[in-house]
Amino acid sequence: MHSTDNWQDMAQTMMISVDAMGGDHGPPVVIAGCEQLLLRRPDVRFLLFGDETAIGAVLAAHPKLAAASEVRHCTVAIAMDDKPSQALRAGRGKSSMWRAVDAVKIGDAQVAVSAGNTGALMAMSKFCLRTLPSIERPAIAAIWPTLRGESIVLDVGATIGADAQQLVDFAVMGGAMARALFHIERPSIGLLNIGAEEVKGLDEVRTAGAMLRDANLTTIAYGGFVEGDDIGQGKVDVVVTEGFVGNIALKTAEGTARQVGSYLRAAMSRTLMAKIGYFFARDAFNRLRAKMDPRKLNGGVFLGLNGIVIKSHGGTDAEGFASALDLAYQMARNDLQSKIRSDLEDYHRGKFGGLGAEPERMS
Amino acid sequence: MHSTDNWQDMAQTMMISVDAMGGDHGPPVVIAGCEQLLLRRPDVRFLLFGDETAIGAVLAAHPKLAAASEVRHCTVAIAMDDKPSQALRAGRGKSSMWRAVDAVKIGDAQVAVSAGNTGALMAMSKFCLRTLPSIERPAIAAIWPTLRGESIVLDVGATIGADAQQLVDFAVMGGAMARALFHIERPSIGLLNIGAEEVKGLDEVRTAGAMLRDANLTTIAYGGFVEGDDIGQGKVDVVVTEGFVGNIALKTAEGTARQVGSYLRAAMSRTLMAKIGYFFARDAFNRLRAKMDPRKLNGGVFLGLNGIVIKSHGGTDAEGFASALDLAYQMARNDLQSKIRSDLEDYHRGKFGGLGAEPERMS
Repeated sequence: MHSTDNWQDMAQTMMISVDAMGGDHGPPVVIAGCEQLLLRRPDVRFLLFGDETAIGAVLAAHPKLAAASEVRHCTVAIAMDDKPSQALRAGRGKSSMWRAVDAVKIGDAQVAVSAGNTGALMAMSKFCLRTLPSIERPAIAAIWPTLRGESIVLDVGATIGADAQQLVDFAVMGGAMARALFHIERPSIGLLNIGAEEVKGLDEVRTAGAMLRDANLTTIAYGGFVEGDDIGQGKVDVVVTEGFVGNIALKTAEGTARQVGSYLRAAMSRTLMAKIGYFFARDAFNRLRAKMDPRKLNGGVFLGLNGIVIKSHGGTDAEGFASALDLAYQMARNDLQSKIRSDLEDYHRGKFGGLGAEPERMS
Repeated sequence: MHSTDNWQDMAQTMMISVDAMGGDHGPPVVIAGCEQLLLRRPDVRFLLFGDETAIGAVLAAHPKLAAASEVRHCTVAIAMDDKPSQALRAGRGKSSMWRAVDAVKIGDAQVAVSAGNTGALMAMSKFCLRTLPSIERPAIAAIWPTLRGESIVLDVGATIGADAQQLVDFAVMGGAMARALFHIERPSIGLLNIGAEEVKGLDEVRTAGAMLRDANLTTIAYGGFVEGDDIGQGKVDVVVTEGFVGNIALKTAEGTARQVGSYLRAAMSRTLMAKIGYFFARDAFNRLRAKMDPRKLNGGVFLGLNGIVIKSHGGTDAEGFASALDLAYQMARNDLQSKIRSDLEDYHRGKFGGLGAEPERMS
């Protein structure tokens, strides 16, 4: 069953490198998640990095997954509370996290996934993969459930602060991701701001808006400013903001959804009539719960590096980890990385070479 | 019934100045809101600023309210889409909005309420009332529903950006408001940040945190950093942030609550069983709806000026406007303004004079 023996099959399989030691629960959850993805995507193969004894013990119970995986032993595991600098010092070259990312660099895998700590994973990804030529800072893109389906929001916390050019880069990369994930030809992009009028809001955001309008890109449709309440309405396919605001918006939305869920649970268990109502409507409540299940949209995508890395929530379970793996699978299968490269090239060609554009104008 | 004829009564009544022309609906909604508050708070009296014909026509149907109100004719009304500079030029000295604020300045009213446009109201309030001696920039404080009750979040959009000292000022003023509104002796304060560790996040926020810890104030209990999802959990009584982030967090939370409400409505009307369930549990759903009713917590409080001004949502109805009036009533009744003054004085005395503090240390 070693399909990797055959070149034809190898070209068609999708190799995901996995930091098996990452997350709050390590190998048991990570490996159970891999097994779930294998059932869903039979063409997936795994490179599992971590302690071979710990991984082997779990894999022994999953023979099908074992046949689709290769274990690469690592002596170091990055702890969830290691500082990025600490993690780099102790784990560079030898930790399961580093080697999972490095597998993408050396071409052994198409995409890497870790549930390890975000700061360490970003530091290692930057150090190992380096940023794309025109990109100064990577971003983390999250998938946000909306009334119209899903949108992409970036940056949700890779870095604090972004100048106008960086916001424009985020827009281009977010557009590429929307095309890869949602299969939309020209995704709509909004800049997160306060007040929808042109005169309002943050200087960097206003300048980025003018740049995006002037660039008139064929890959994305710039739709102006959006406000906090437009995100969940799905007003645009991609919402662009800098990492501090993006992270706070994301966590505020998650917190509010949980809060309303708590109110609902309390209301439904307070009276006998409510309990009877809950009994009749339990399928509807289950559907609602499934819709709001944070495990379904687990996974932050690191954009702007020479390779795709996906960060899973550290505390998630096997189902949640499988969602992050599936996101990785889709991103690699739909060639996110080459879309980003070519979109960035298009943008920079237009900026410096096309149609009498004046690059100085916006500075 | 003119209780203002009697000095004793006058000392006990609460005079609220109202911009009767503000909001999407003007006098009909504003005046109906005043009537609702009068029923709830019989000791309230109103100064109604605006077109006396329009106001008179509505008041004619509300004789009790008419007896508790004085109408002051204004020839200018600020439009909802006037720019702040435009509003100031056209409305200074004579618009209903300006004169409602001015009534607080000249002592005719204890607090002013307008549903007019935020930018214009803030510009006029700053121009007319001026900021408190130690305050450079005012803030808008919102009341945020939480799992533990309510919290105060500021700034939700008065200005973009805030340095560490301004964040500390917001903390002191928010603490005073929490004492006035929630009757807590020493409210807990958190600084909104990303990542709860001391080493993470925005520089200004980290510096403000150190300043608040060192100040060791008796009026507030500094509780460290909070993240977006901590707000709705009610982790602290007061959440402090700068206006851009605060505005986006507030609108994101409002949008998410509406979004979950839409999911719930859709789920409850999809199948017959769900509809039966809804029928039995309708009291529970009504309670939930009431709990999430944005009209209940309508009103942004302008802090840091020589007088209290409350901004109501422009699109609200009479019930919502009555909530903003009630908030104004409580703020004035519980002497928010003197609490802010004395708390700021305490803070500055401690900073420059107390216990060998070194004001240079934090700079």
